[in-house]
Amino acid sequence: MAVIPDGKDAAALFHAADAGRDNLQVETAREYLAAEALTPTEVVFVCQHNPLPPNSFSDQPWAVKIGGVDPPRTVSLDEIRSFGALELTTVLQCAGNGRAYFTHTMMDGRGPNWQVGAAANVRWRGTPLRAVLDALGGPASVRARYLTATGGEPTRGLERRENEVVERSIPLSKAYRDGLLAWEMDGGALRPEHGGPLRLIVPGYYGVNNVKWLARLKVSELESQARIQRTSYRIRPVGQRGDPSQPTMWEMPVKSFTTRLRSASDPYTIELEGVAFSGGGAVVQVEVSFDGGRGWRDATFRDPIRGPYAWRRFHARADVGPGRHVVCTRASDDRGQTQPRNFPPNERGYGNNSWLDHAQEIDIDPTSVSGVAEGDA
Amino acid sequence: MAVIPDGKDAAALFHAADAGRDNLQVETAREYLAAEALTPTEVVFVCQHNPLPPNSFSDQPWAVKIGGVDPPRTVSLDEIRSFGALELTTVLQCAGNGRAYFTHTMMDGRGPNWQVGAAANVRWRGTPLRAVLDALGGPASVRARYLTATGGEPTRGLERRENEVVERSIPLSKAYRDGLLAWEMDGGALRPEHGGPLRLIVPGYYGVNNVKWLARLKVSELESQARIQRTSYRIRPVGQRGDPSQPTMWEMPVKSFTTRLRSASDPYTIELEGVAFSGGGAVVQVEVSFDGGRGWRDATFRDPIRGPYAWRRFHARADVGPGRHVVCTRASDDRGQTQPRNFPPNERGYGNNSWLDHAQEIDIDPTSVSGVAEGDA
Repeated sequence: MAVIPDGKDAAALFHAADAGRDNLQVETAREYLAAEALTPTEVVFVCQHNPLPPNSFSDQPWAVKIGGVDPPRTVSLDEIRSFGALELTTVLQCAGNGRAYFTHTMMDGRGPNWQVGAAANVRWRGTPLRAVLDALGGPASVRARYLTATGGEPTRGLERRENEVVERSIPLSKAYRDGLLAWEMDGGALRPEHGGPLRLIVPGYYGVNNVKWLARLKVSELESQARIQRTSYRIRPVGQRGDPSQPTMWEMPVKSFTTRLRSASDPYTIELEGVAFSGGGAVVQVEVSFDGGRGWRDATFRDPIRGPYAWRRFHARADVGPGRHVVCTRASDDRGQTQPRNFPPNERGYGNNSWLDHAQEIDIDPTSVSGVAEGDA
Repeated sequence: MAVIPDGKDAAALFHAADAGRDNLQVETAREYLAAEALTPTEVVFVCQHNPLPPNSFSDQPWAVKIGGVDPPRTVSLDEIRSFGALELTTVLQCAGNGRAYFTHTMMDGRGPNWQVGAAANVRWRGTPLRAVLDALGGPASVRARYLTATGGEPTRGLERRENEVVERSIPLSKAYRDGLLAWEMDGGALRPEHGGPLRLIVPGYYGVNNVKWLARLKVSELESQARIQRTSYRIRPVGQRGDPSQPTMWEMPVKSFTTRLRSASDPYTIELEGVAFSGGGAVVQVEVSFDGGRGWRDATFRDPIRGPYAWRRFHARADVGPGRHVVCTRASDDRGQTQPRNFPPNERGYGNNSWLDHAQEIDIDPTSVSGVAEGDA
C-alpha cells in the first residue's frame, strides 16, 4: 500500500482507495479542511494515478514545450516567471469528490470512494497563462478553440500512449481568462506530489484539468484524443461507455458541505461549520436545515467573497429537541445556481453536489452524560 | 461645440451628438475601427459628459481612496503599480452603441446617436484589482457583494452629489476575477480623455462601468445610490422611468458589424470585413447573409481567439447579381449565445445587438463605369 508522502500530516489524511504502487488516493478528514481560511499543504488531499516524474524532485531546470504558436517554442520555467506573477485562491476538487454518497451499487471499483475531503482551498502563485500566450504571439490558427495541457508523468508503455498520457483540453477562452502556470502553493515551492515544479491551474474547473508536472501546452483546433479527455471524465448513465459527445468534467457546479457538526444536550443545540463554493460565480447564500430539508434558514458566512474561485466558510446553530436530526446545507451562487436535492447517478460517480446526499445525521441522546456528540456521515 | 482633443485623428472621428461645453461625444468612422488588430488611440471614440479633472493633466501624484477594507486606505498610483502588472485587450463599448438603429421615434435627445463606432479594441496595462484587494486584506464585511468605483470628475454643484457623481457598482466576484486598474493604453501612458492617469477596466462590461479618473473604490454590501447606478443605465420599456429592479448595463451580449463593405461589377461580387465580440465568452462563429437574412454562410476569421474580451476580425466574399443587396452579420459565442434578429426598443436605446438593425445595403449598378461601390448604413 502506498504511504503518505513525507511532509504530510498523517492524522488528517486517510486512504480513499486500496491503492497499488505509484497510486496514491488520500483524502482529508472533514474537520481539517477549513480550520483556517486556506487548507494547509500538509493536509491537502493527493490524487495520483502514476509515478512521479523523476525530475520533479531534482534541481534540474524545468521547461514546457508550447505548440500551436508560431514558431513553436520550448520555454524554461525561469522565462515563464519573467512574464509576470499573480496570486490566486482556488478550490481544488477531484471530479469524483462525493462519489461515496451515490447509492447505486455500481460504484465499487469505479474510482476512489471520496467523501468530501478530495477538496481544498489553495493559494497559488504563478504566471498568468495569458501573458505567456501573448508573449509567444498568440494562437497560430484562427480556428484554434482549445488549450491542451500534457503532464510529465512517465508512461508505462503497457498501452498506446494516448491511453496512458495525462492530457486535458479546456476552452481557449477559459485558458486566456483564468489559466495560471503555478510554481508556488501555500507560500512555498510547489511540491512534487501536488504537481511541482509547475502545474496548470484552471480556476473553477475540476482537479483533472489542473495538469501536474506540466510538460507541454498546445493551442489546438480539436480536443485531445487522449483517453482521459476523449472518453474518461464524461458524465453518462450507469453502464454506458464514455464518448466525446457527453459532457466533460470542466466547470464545478455550486456545492457545500459541513466540516464540523456538534450537539449539546443542555439545552439541546446543534452547531455546524461548513464550506461552500462554485466554479462559475461567488457563493452568496447558504441555507441550512436541521430536519432533512423540510425547513431552511440562512447560515452566517465566516469569510467574505474573495473572488469566484475561493470557498467561503459558514456556520449555524439551532435549538432543537432530543432525538435524531438530519442536517443539510444548500448553497447558491451569484449566477442563480442552487444545489439540487438530488444529482443523477452516473457511470463513474462524478460531480455529486446533491444536498441530500451530503446530509449528516446527529443523535442527541437525553440520557447522555457528557451532553456532547459528534456527527458523522 | 466641443473640439476633438489634441492627438486625435480628426479624419476618423465625427460628432455623435451636438454636444455642449465639456461634453464630448465623438465616434470612430466604421472603416477606421479594425484596420489593425487593435484600434489605435488616435481614433478611439470619446464619450465624456463632464469636464476633465484638473489634475488628470498635471504631474501631481494620483491616489485612490479604498473603503470597505480594514482599515480603509488611500493608496498611491505608485503603490498600486508595485502590486503587479498585467496586459489585457478588451472591447470598450458604450452602452448606447447602435442606438442610431432603433426605429422608435423616441430616441431624439435620449443620448448620442451612436452607430457602430462607440466601440474599440483596446490594449491595456495595469494592476489586477485582485492584487490590490488581497494586499489590503480583502473585504471587511462578509456581507459585501459589490465593488463601487467613483470617478474623479469635479461635480458642478447644480444638483445633489448623487445625481452628478459618476459612480458605478459591479459584482464583487466580477471585480476580483477580471478587474484591472489600468494606467497604460495602446502601449503609452493613459491619456486624460480616456481616463488617465488611472482607469478601472471591467473586461466584458459596457464602457460606463470602466470608471475614468478613478478616485475611490469601495467594497460594499449595496449598489451605489448614485443616479448613474440607481436609475440610469437601466433597460426598460420606452417611456418608463429607471429603477433598481431593472437590468443594469453590465455584461455586453454577443455582437458583430461590418467595418468595410465593397462591391465590384465585373464579375458582380461583394466583399466585407467586420468585427465580432461578446462580453462573456469567445466568439466562435460569424455567419453572413447577402440577402437580408434568408441565406447564411460562415465568414472567415482574420484573428484567432485571444481570450474572451478582445474582438475578432472576419471577412467574407460572395458572387452576387446586380441590384440591391442587404448584407447582415451574425455572431455566436462559446456559451451558446447568438445575436438576435431584433432587440427590443427601450427607453434610452441601450444594448442594441440586433443583426437586422446592423444590416447594410449595397447597390450594384450594372451601368456603373468604375464597377466599385462603397456600402453605407
